[in-house]
Amino acid sequence: MPRPKKAAGLAVGVVGASGMVGRELLNVLAKSRFPVGRLAVFSSGKKARSVLFRGRRLPLAAPSLSALRACRVVFFVSSDEVSRRWAPALAQAGAWVIDDSSAFRLDPSVPLVIPEINAAELSPKRRLIAGPNCTMSGLGLAAAALHRAAGVLEIRAASYQAVSGAGLSALEEFLSQARAVSGRLRAARADLFAKELRSLRPNVLPRAIAYNVVPQVGGFAADGYSGEENKVAAELRKVLAAPKLAVSVTAVRVPTLRGHALAVWLRLKRPLSPAGARAVLKKAPGVVFVDSPSYPTPAGVAGRADVFVGRLRRGARPDELALWVVSDNLLKGAASNSLQIAQELLRRGWL
Amino acid sequence: MPRPKKAAGLAVGVVGASGMVGRELLNVLAKSRFPVGRLAVFSSGKKARSVLFRGRRLPLAAPSLSALRACRVVFFVSSDEVSRRWAPALAQAGAWVIDDSSAFRLDPSVPLVIPEINAAELSPKRRLIAGPNCTMSGLGLAAAALHRAAGVLEIRAASYQAVSGAGLSALEEFLSQARAVSGRLRAARADLFAKELRSLRPNVLPRAIAYNVVPQVGGFAADGYSGEENKVAAELRKVLAAPKLAVSVTAVRVPTLRGHALAVWLRLKRPLSPAGARAVLKKAPGVVFVDSPSYPTPAGVAGRADVFVGRLRRGARPDELALWVVSDNLLKGAASNSLQIAQELLRRGWL
Repeated sequence: MPRPKKAAGLAVGVVGASGMVGRELLNVLAKSRFPVGRLAVFSSGKKARSVLFRGRRLPLAAPSLSALRACRVVFFVSSDEVSRRWAPALAQAGAWVIDDSSAFRLDPSVPLVIPEINAAELSPKRRLIAGPNCTMSGLGLAAAALHRAAGVLEIRAASYQAVSGAGLSALEEFLSQARAVSGRLRAARADLFAKELRSLRPNVLPRAIAYNVVPQVGGFAADGYSGEENKVAAELRKVLAAPKLAVSVTAVRVPTLRGHALAVWLRLKRPLSPAGARAVLKKAPGVVFVDSPSYPTPAGVAGRADVFVGRLRRGARPDELALWVVSDNLLKGAASNSLQIAQELLRRGWL
Repeated sequence: MPRPKKAAGLAVGVVGASGMVGRELLNVLAKSRFPVGRLAVFSSGKKARSVLFRGRRLPLAAPSLSALRACRVVFFVSSDEVSRRWAPALAQAGAWVIDDSSAFRLDPSVPLVIPEINAAELSPKRRLIAGPNCTMSGLGLAAAALHRAAGVLEIRAASYQAVSGAGLSALEEFLSQARAVSGRLRAARADLFAKELRSLRPNVLPRAIAYNVVPQVGGFAADGYSGEENKVAAELRKVLAAPKLAVSVTAVRVPTLRGHALAVWLRLKRPLSPAGARAVLKKAPGVVFVDSPSYPTPAGVAGRADVFVGRLRRGARPDELALWVVSDNLLKGAASNSLQIAQELLRRGWL
């Protein structure tokens, strides 16, 4: 039975197809061998009217349960609100739902899946599947490999998050700020920098981001941590199945385009030297290990679906490792991970 | 005897007066009440021929021991090489030398001074005085206050370092990269970002820095740490007089203009709550504490001489604090700290 269905291709839906991650998802789907038959693209209705897929222009429609139910698998790459409105009912109705929003990631009944780590969480009984926060996925993959090898007790991470992670309008704001001020800056007049930068007004992001770094991603909770920081911590604990893991993250938006980087410290339960950790990471699926003196940077890995790890060395204590993790937030952080989940479902014959 | 000398003003020298820090030093000197009589400005001879000071154009000369010895106090804001060549002989000859290079910072016979922390290290017998690394000074000030209050055992810090910290030619390279690519970037074509950024070639810095972050500041040592990372660690231990302090730094260059930021974790010996730490930092000289939900950013503090601390909260463990430190690398990181040292010498009647 599955064979003719595969030959004809699957009915696939993408909700949020005109957003940053949506476009990337269409790109990776188009390049993949995933058997897309009919592709239905949805948008919660702002600017774009259509999107391109494999050279064909597809009209965007507002989501409706009947149109979504006609799909075998639906990718949600829109807002938490859109996912909350449609995803549970759709999964209930029997479609596979791969949700990139944060709406259900911490729901105990929803598997939160990075396939290289915990594809075993997938089950035909749980048709709503969450993908991780884009800041978490790279860190999660590196930490999972080291956790299996030596047990991770404590994680500290400072992030360098690209503006594309905040969506299309944030990226537009950033680029317009950069264009407004770049021509006026002169290296020899560093005394004027503050004045030039004060002319930039933020609208989408909490502070002007051009030529600045902003240690706020999301709102702040009572404990002083931001929404992003608490998400990364909670999702790490869930994906690593380590509910007691001690995590402290400082999430910082930086003026880069795509690619989230993290400076990470991992304190381990069992002894593991940097050389031992290197051997573990070299073998870890989805991870590209970069030996010193080279290292990955966001601009260098933009457009690549792997997680890049470098700058591996001992941390502040003998039982700690320090490392540098970079991954494309729109790919492994979102679109590629979602597609990997769908491919895993296909491999198991569930699609 | 000192009174007539002060009235006439001191003979002051600045070596490296046309560099990034040199210009800032002339600015802060001009605005200060420091009694500058004759000002001799030196440059190791590249582009600039003169500099402005209090509206007067002063010709730059190549350093010579005779010209330097005619000064009562000489600020070195040039390279390690220039400091090594002139500073020890000059101090030996009786001039006060305030050196902003890294050449002598770790020399046991040279005091490494952040006046709010360890002005007591100043002595009429040690006329060569070092100022700290620009990444270290902000972190040092915050850590010193908490160290006095509760004892700091371990420090982890990830830096967000402005390009001006790498000097004028690095800043020129950055701005020219930013100008070259900013007009071509379109938010809707994130798929082209990697291609656009690959067109940028680094020359001064190790990687293209526009729209990128680069986890390399200085060369790498055998232990995997960069020169900057090891400097910050060693200087922290010296300034805090804590030779056993465990420190791990990841130093990262980011595409900002001026103002170094750090995400910091401090593990403490004695219990100190975030509220207690806030009270300590509110009273700490040279520190401006920023309460959540606000926080300092590099663009926001550019041009200000204080160290700004915010995002204070518990770290990964109950005995750890997390915080965010921002200071202007050209000011507290360099020029302002040097001037403060000179003012301290003056206050003691040694100048």
